[in-house]
Amino acid sequence: MNHLVIMAGGIGSRFWPMSTPQCPKQFVDVLGCGRTFIQLTVDRFKGVVPAENVWVVTSEAYRDIVAEQLPDMPKGNILLEPCRRNTAPCIAYVSWRIKLKDPKANIVVSPSDHLVLNVPEFQRVISSALQYASETDAIVTLGMKPTRPETGYGYIQTDLSAACERNKEIFRVDAFKEKPDLKTAQEYVKKNNMLWNAGIFVWNINTIINALRVYAPQINGIFEGMQNVLGTKDEQAAIRERFPQCENISIDYAILEKADEIYCFPASFGWSDLGTWGSLRENTVQDAGGNAVIGSNVKLYETKNCVVHVAQERRVVVQGLDGYIVAEKDNTLLICKLSEEQRIKEFSAE
Amino acid sequence: MNHLVIMAGGIGSRFWPMSTPQCPKQFVDVLGCGRTFIQLTVDRFKGVVPAENVWVVTSEAYRDIVAEQLPDMPKGNILLEPCRRNTAPCIAYVSWRIKLKDPKANIVVSPSDHLVLNVPEFQRVISSALQYASETDAIVTLGMKPTRPETGYGYIQTDLSAACERNKEIFRVDAFKEKPDLKTAQEYVKKNNMLWNAGIFVWNINTIINALRVYAPQINGIFEGMQNVLGTKDEQAAIRERFPQCENISIDYAILEKADEIYCFPASFGWSDLGTWGSLRENTVQDAGGNAVIGSNVKLYETKNCVVHVAQERRVVVQGLDGYIVAEKDNTLLICKLSEEQRIKEFSAE
Repeated sequence: MNHLVIMAGGIGSRFWPMSTPQCPKQFVDVLGCGRTFIQLTVDRFKGVVPAENVWVVTSEAYRDIVAEQLPDMPKGNILLEPCRRNTAPCIAYVSWRIKLKDPKANIVVSPSDHLVLNVPEFQRVISSALQYASETDAIVTLGMKPTRPETGYGYIQTDLSAACERNKEIFRVDAFKEKPDLKTAQEYVKKNNMLWNAGIFVWNINTIINALRVYAPQINGIFEGMQNVLGTKDEQAAIRERFPQCENISIDYAILEKADEIYCFPASFGWSDLGTWGSLRENTVQDAGGNAVIGSNVKLYETKNCVVHVAQERRVVVQGLDGYIVAEKDNTLLICKLSEEQRIKEFSAE
Repeated sequence: MNHLVIMAGGIGSRFWPMSTPQCPKQFVDVLGCGRTFIQLTVDRFKGVVPAENVWVVTSEAYRDIVAEQLPDMPKGNILLEPCRRNTAPCIAYVSWRIKLKDPKANIVVSPSDHLVLNVPEFQRVISSALQYASETDAIVTLGMKPTRPETGYGYIQTDLSAACERNKEIFRVDAFKEKPDLKTAQEYVKKNNMLWNAGIFVWNINTIINALRVYAPQINGIFEGMQNVLGTKDEQAAIRERFPQCENISIDYAILEKADEIYCFPASFGWSDLGTWGSLRENTVQDAGGNAVIGSNVKLYETKNCVVHVAQERRVVVQGLDGYIVAEKDNTLLICKLSEEQRIKEFSAE
């Protein structure tokens, strides 16, 4: 059976005040389309993963939001981290829960707050990768074909001469590269084997469990040792006690950069991590002046290259701005140059 | 007895969205001091005019706001205009009401939405003018000593060689001058006999009634003909019928520019009509960057020469603005260059 794991523990601090610790970006209708990011994420797996196989790993604080926003998934599939330990413990936890329920699971791991424009192509790629993962012990990453010299993403160096036997769209990975400087990114984008790491992974349950055992034994040991309580009423108490003991490390560092059988599926389906207000502006429908406006009662005069994000019912008039963020949520308003958005954490400090 | 007439029928469209047709500027805590403009207006007459002699002329729509904001004045002293007919009908109406109650009244007429910083000096000037008006048949205007070549005010040309016998601070008026162009205003400000017309008038009841009879007989006739219903339960019905028939004209045009016994009391008590966002900024305490901020949770970064007006509890961060209005009330937000504020009526159109 196919399973979907959504990692939804982020706090979205770069999108303040639209995103707040109380309700971070993945639970917000960022695009003003009537669906939050986590809802859109689940939506795009419809037909690929049944609702009962959707798993969400998030913070304890967000349990009720997840349950409310994703009413079709089993409440028991919402796994709660008592603290933030990066992605390796998160994946280890949910993998052991899935293994106990479905020892033949094939799994997609996905962030909760990314944008995908071409959902049919996304589904084709995911289905193909799941099929491949079900037949092999491959760890498959999705590599986005870059459209610009982006310095905000990690890159996957792929050996395009080494297509897999069973799926000619999937290639062996040579190396993972950290976020590059601009010059390096410009070199990457000229090549065709340097792909953006979208943080989407596909594997079967035995592959990931084996990889955890080999490459992340400290973390794996904690959850393997909890098999008798996982899925029982004692699970959360045990997790509260043991989860904080996990090493704080990403799945990329813990496994992907160490394991051998790592593969990449190069794809193009209009993906963006929408990690900044600037990328939100670039990936949203713009008016003739390059403004991205979320809000149904916003009037702009002599305004260009701005991103305006307000509640649907808010009445807003903006005159004479170029290159600004105007973002408002609940009791808070931010007006800030897009070029200064890396300071939003500073601005949002109480 | 001294009486205070507050004209409070304005709609304050230039201060949208802080000021709205539902709750215009005079009923707003513009300065963030906990008192609305009309409350501040009444406050500054304390000790000069007793509460039972405070009269407010306003639109029917604002009756409840006035009653709520000025709980100490008699409800029967709130006079309601069924439509806007400028200041002459307003003053005729309230003058006949006062005459029937107090045939020896001395009256100050004041706008409801102006700023006075030096209240003791204001009270000294008003008391002196009331004393003078009680002893003479003078129509006394208050002339503000100009501090800049303001093109937004009318000017009073005063004969400073002709001080009155009974009060050496009061002088005969030579002429009223309409709002000048900048060059003319620059000439005015160099002289010492060109004074801003603050729209504050002082007279006794017989003086104004006589002037109305002589110079505004159409308007006066309507109210003089209603003496038997004024102050009775039939008043409002009669006003609804007859008030709209009044000529639409200001007291300046109808009487001041025609009558002979017009005097001016030159004064300086930190007055401003606060008619624009720009003048609000100039007349409010500014930070080192020239920002005027109303709101207790507003943080500014690299921001100067702005006026920010939001509800006290609103959390606002502004970065990188120079010379802008950021104003918010209820469901509406305006961001606009101060230099474009004359377009606010356009912006506020639904």
